[in-house]
Order: sequence, then C-alpha cells, then structure tokens
Amino acid sequence: MNKKQIAVIGSGMIRKEEIRNLTENLGEKLIDNDFRIICGGKEGVMEAVCKGARRSKNYKEGMIVGILPSLERLDANPYVDIVITTGMSYARNQIIISSADVVIAIQGGAGTLSEIAFAWQYDKPIIVLKNTGGWAEKLTEVRLNERKREPIIGANNVEEIITYLKNTFKT
Amino acid sequence: MNKKQIAVIGSGMIRKEEIRNLTENLGEKLIDNDFRIICGGKEGVMEAVCKGARRSKNYKEGMIVGILPSLERLDANPYVDIVITTGMSYARNQIIISSADVVIAIQGGAGTLSEIAFAWQYDKPIIVLKNTGGWAEKLTEVRLNERKREPIIGANNVEEIITYLKNTFKT
Amino acid sequence: MNKKQIAVIGSGMIRKEEIRNLTENLGEKLIDNDFRIICGGKEGVMEAVCKGARRSKNYKEGMIVGILPSLERLDANPYVDIVITTGMSYARNQIIISSADVVIAIQGGAGTLSEIAFAWQYDKPIIVLKNTGGWAEKLTEVRLNERKREPIIGANNVEEIITYLKNTFKT
Amino acid sequence: MNKKQIAVIGSGMIRKEEIRNLTENLGEKLIDNDFRIICGGKEGVMEAVCKGARRSKNYKEGMIVGILPSLERLDANPYVDIVITTGMSYARNQIIISSADVVIAIQGGAGTLSEIAFAWQYDKPIIVLKNTGGWAEKLTEVRLNERKREPIIGANNVEEIITYLKNTFKT
Repeated sequence: MNKKQIAVIGSGMIRKEEIRNLTENLGEKLIDNDFRIICGGKEGVMEAVCKGARRSKNYKEGMIVGILPSLERLDANPYVDIVITTGMSYARNQIIISSADVVIAIQGGAGTLSEIAFAWQYDKPIIVLKNTGGWAEKLTEVRLNERKREPIIGANNVEEIITYLKNTFKT
Repeated sequence: MNKKQIAVIGSGMIRKEEIRNLTENLGEKLIDNDFRIICGGKEGVMEAVCKGARRSKNYKEGMIVGILPSLERLDANPYVDIVITTGMSYARNQIIISSADVVIAIQGGAGTLSEIAFAWQYDKPIIVLKNTGGWAEKLTEVRLNERKREPIIGANNVEEIITYLKNTFKT
Repeated sequence: MNKKQIAVIGSGMIRKEEIRNLTENLGEKLIDNDFRIICGGKEGVMEAVCKGARRSKNYKEGMIVGILPSLERLDANPYVDIVITTGMSYARNQIIISSADVVIAIQGGAGTLSEIAFAWQYDKPIIVLKNTGGWAEKLTEVRLNERKREPIIGANNVEEIITYLKNTFKT
Repeated sequence: MNKKQIAVIGSGMIRKEEIRNLTENLGEKLIDNDFRIICGGKEGVMEAVCKGARRSKNYKEGMIVGILPSLERLDANPYVDIVITTGMSYARNQIIISSADVVIAIQGGAGTLSEIAFAWQYDKPIIVLKNTGGWAEKLTEVRLNERKREPIIGANNVEEIITYLKNTFKT
C-alpha cells in the first residue's frame, strides 16, 4: 500500500525561530512515522518541513515532494526530492491539496488561506498547529461553510498531530 | 479602451430573498455603469448577478462572462453571454480573479474564501458587501497578511460599491 | 441563444503578408456572420484575426476574447475586447479549445499542434486553412488517432470555412 | 543530487504484446539506472512502464510518480508510488512534461501528441521509440517548428534510450 501523503502548508517566510523548530520537528516526525510529505516546495514553512524530514532516521529518497507554482525547478528548496513544476501560479495549490490525505497548516497568510479553503472543499481533514499565528490559528475549530464535515482541527503541538495521523491511518 | 472587468463572487446557493435582490441589483448597476461582469458562471450569487445584469438598459450581449470549473458548457446559468470552460475544477478561481480589475464578494463559503485569498495575493481591490453573511462579512476591513496593500473594503450597500468603482475608474 | 464561439489558433509570428491578409479576412468574415472569436490573445495569427474582426461592420464590443498564458493583461494584442489572464502557461490552450464550438488553425507551430491535439481529444470540429504551412497544412484530412470522429477538415480558403460554419450552425 | 526525472508518455491502450513488453522493459531499465519515472499514472503505456519499473532490483518506493488528470486517486494504476491528482483534465500534460528532464514517447495518440508539442515548447529532449506506431513513430527526427533546438530523437530500442540518458546525465 502506498504511503499516506500529508500536505504541509504555511507561510513562505518564518519570522520566529520557535516556529521554524516546530515545523522542522513536524517534518522529522512525519517521516519517522513513514508518511510522505507534499508541500509547495519553496521557502519558509515549506523549506523547514523538508529540512526536518531529511533529519529523520527513517528518511529515504522520494519521501519529500515539492509542487512549485513556476516552471523553474531551481525555485525548489534544496531538501525536496521530487520537484513537480506546474507553471500554473497559485492554481498549483489545488494540486497540493487534492493530492493529500491530510492537510496540516502552520502559521500562514493569504496563500495558506486559499489552500485551507481548497482543503475544505475537497473534504480533506485539516489540522492547524495552534499558537503559530496567521490563518492556522484564526481558523482553529472553525467551519468554513455549512457543509457537514469535520471542522478544522486545532493541535496544540506536533505530538497531537502525529497521534491524530496514527489513529486515522494505522488502525 | 476596454471595459473594466468586475469579478462578482459568492455562494453557489442563496437562501435569503434579500440577498438575491441585492445581487441582482448589483448586476444591473454594474451594467448601467458600463462594467463587464466576470463570474464563475454557475448558480446562486453568480446567477443572480448575471440575471440582474441582463435587466439593465445598458446591457449589450458580451458584457457577462462565466468561467466554469468544468468542461461542460451546460453548467453555465442561462444569463451568461460568454462561457469559458476550463476543465480545471476550482483552479479556475485563479482565472476569474486574475482577470478582474476589482473583486466584489457577496456572502460566500469556502470557494469564495479561496477566491478572496487569491484576490489578495494578486493585489486586486476587494470589496465585500456587508451584512450578507459568510466570508464576505467576516473579512470586512481585514488584512489577510502583512503585505502592504489596501485592506478588504466593506460596502454597506450596492450604491457604495458603484461609487467606489466610479471613483476608481472614471476619474 | 449565445453566439457560437470559434477558436482561431496559429503561429505567434506571421512571416508572409499573404497569411496575414487571409487571417484578417477570416476575422472579418467571422464577425460578419455573427460568430464570437476566441483566441490566445497574443501576436501573429491571434492578432491578425482580432484586427480583421474589428474591421467588420457587424463588430460589437465583446465579440473578441483573448485567453492569455500569463497573468499580465498587457500581453494581449490591442484588438482583444475581453482579456482573460490564466497564469497557467500553455495549459491555457485547454481553455481556448474546450470553450470553442469549432477550432480553426492557420499555419502553426508546436503550440498550435498542442491545441489541435486538445481539440481532437475534446471532440471539437477542426478546420485547417490549407496552403498556410505549418501544422495546419500537415494535418489536413489527418486522423490523430483511431477514435471514431470527423477527421481534420482542410479548407482551401476563408469562404469554405464560413460556408462550413454556416451549414453547421445556421440550419 | 536529485534523481533525474524521465517522463514516459504514450497511448492509454496497448494493443500489441510486443509494445507492452518493450515498455515494461523500458521501465525496468530506467529504474536499473536510477532514474525516476514520471507518467500520467493511468493505463496502457503508463501502466506498463510502471509495472516494469517495479520489477527492477534497484526499485525503491518513491521512484514512480503518476500525475492524474482527475481528482480521483483511484484512477492511478496500481504500480504508481506517488499519486498526484491535478483535477485539471489534459492541462495536467503540462505538469508531466515541465517536470521532466527528458521525455520518452511510445506509440501515442492525440494526448501523446499534445505532450510532445509541450515538450518541444519547454525545450525538453524528446526521444521516440521507433516502430511502435502512433505519433512517436511519425515524429521521428521531425522538427515541430523553426526553433533552434535538438530535433525529436528516434531510438531503435530500449538500449539506445538508456545509452542516450547515460551519456546525457552520467558524464
């Protein structure tokens, strides 16, 4: 069976060292638990999650996918294994989200907001890491519309995210 | 000079007659003032704005553009003049937004939220009609991230929207 | 009933005056017969067909649609009425083709070839103007695969194209 | 350094056992030589190349990427490791091609033709396996337009393809 694909989305710029550490830690733990990471392939949260992923002892080449808005492979951060160039600008957000089993948001500005909105529409479970600011924080426990589905889940820390994923997929 | 292109976005379903009337009125007034309407081409707010547009005495064939997510022209509401089928699912939201001079949101769920987020990223002026509920209402005067740009503008009624547009483009 | 939408595709650069004249003439005749023109919005065949269209006495604002690969409206030629910016590079070819009732190819290089291939897959009638060189000429009467559908039609001149369109849609 | 990404494109249906065997053999040899395979993720040539890839002793999970036109992961053939759902219909062809270092075509109908045209425009080296019929065969040594670039390369067999790739990337 294929590895579960976890989209990690968030700001393209990280200002606080603490958030960088959290995101790297998330990347490491996702790989420890044998998930594949899908992200936008660029800087900030995207780079941190990829960098952390490479640190895991369970890391094997091919576990980190970056889906870029541009046609330019060099836009990818150096920790991405598989670079998908879409040439479709932010429309690539749809591809990241629709390819994911679960979507995890950290911090996040307008781009992340569009991805969370897509995730809601495509009925993907959405977990936001609380206390990281940005849209991730604002949307904790929020429902984006009246559709009957699981609300956006707020996690207090990386461990809660991993527990959620293990409960969801390993049973 | 080409007509200014105004994207009108919002829920695919309207529950309150009052919002339908407001939206139809917006469509009519946009055409009265010689703007072109760009929308998602489907039901709800999209259909109401197109229906109202056709009612304007200034309406001429070609002023109403619907950009569909599907490849199926029959998904368009009957008031659209020009049906663009994208076959790209919600990625078509990028096309609606990037083609607009100004984006107006009425009510709106997750799809509208993704469009507002795109509009923010593409630096489009965004006006939300207040008191219509949904994301339009929640995002009044909000800034989606730290980017230095005009915040989301809240309009109390259709007249304020038209005044904004006239001030912006007719000077 | 909506105007029929005719995609006109072809090279982004025209080298022979004769082809420019033919293409402008096609644009004029399409509008004379009340069709809407959809094209890639840029130079070469795209610009010539739009320029000719504006010359028709039947031309009304809104009859010429340009669907651009970029996010930059200024990439459109000056004869386009409605500029759709996709930001999706050549993936926008799908949008031009799927939005058309009939696809007409003049001359044409690799981009046009991809559009003809899309037109074949989306089951759109395809007419190539013979003796204009490029892929339009090479594919006259060709079947792109074994699918049971009308082969690519070769037209000897603009009049034959218009006759085909009138026979197809006006009966 | 990342693995080189080789797009393998071709018909969604294979009629001759010989072509299936050739394609499976190509998949196996690509993985033997440590390339990553990118394909459309579906049946026919796409499935055969993935199936062969899994047979290689060098195969490791993550070496086979399928980029689907739909939003439906179950449309992927069972040999794909990483399923990217685009929801963008044939516009996904751009993503397959632009993400590749080299494009290899086997047999192929209209869809493959659009991919070869994209590959030409994105300046990707294109190798067609001769004697497999379809567009792969017809375009051997052909130049799609006047752009100064390497013409489409015809390979007589899988070995020639592998030799080309090794010469290109291993020096």
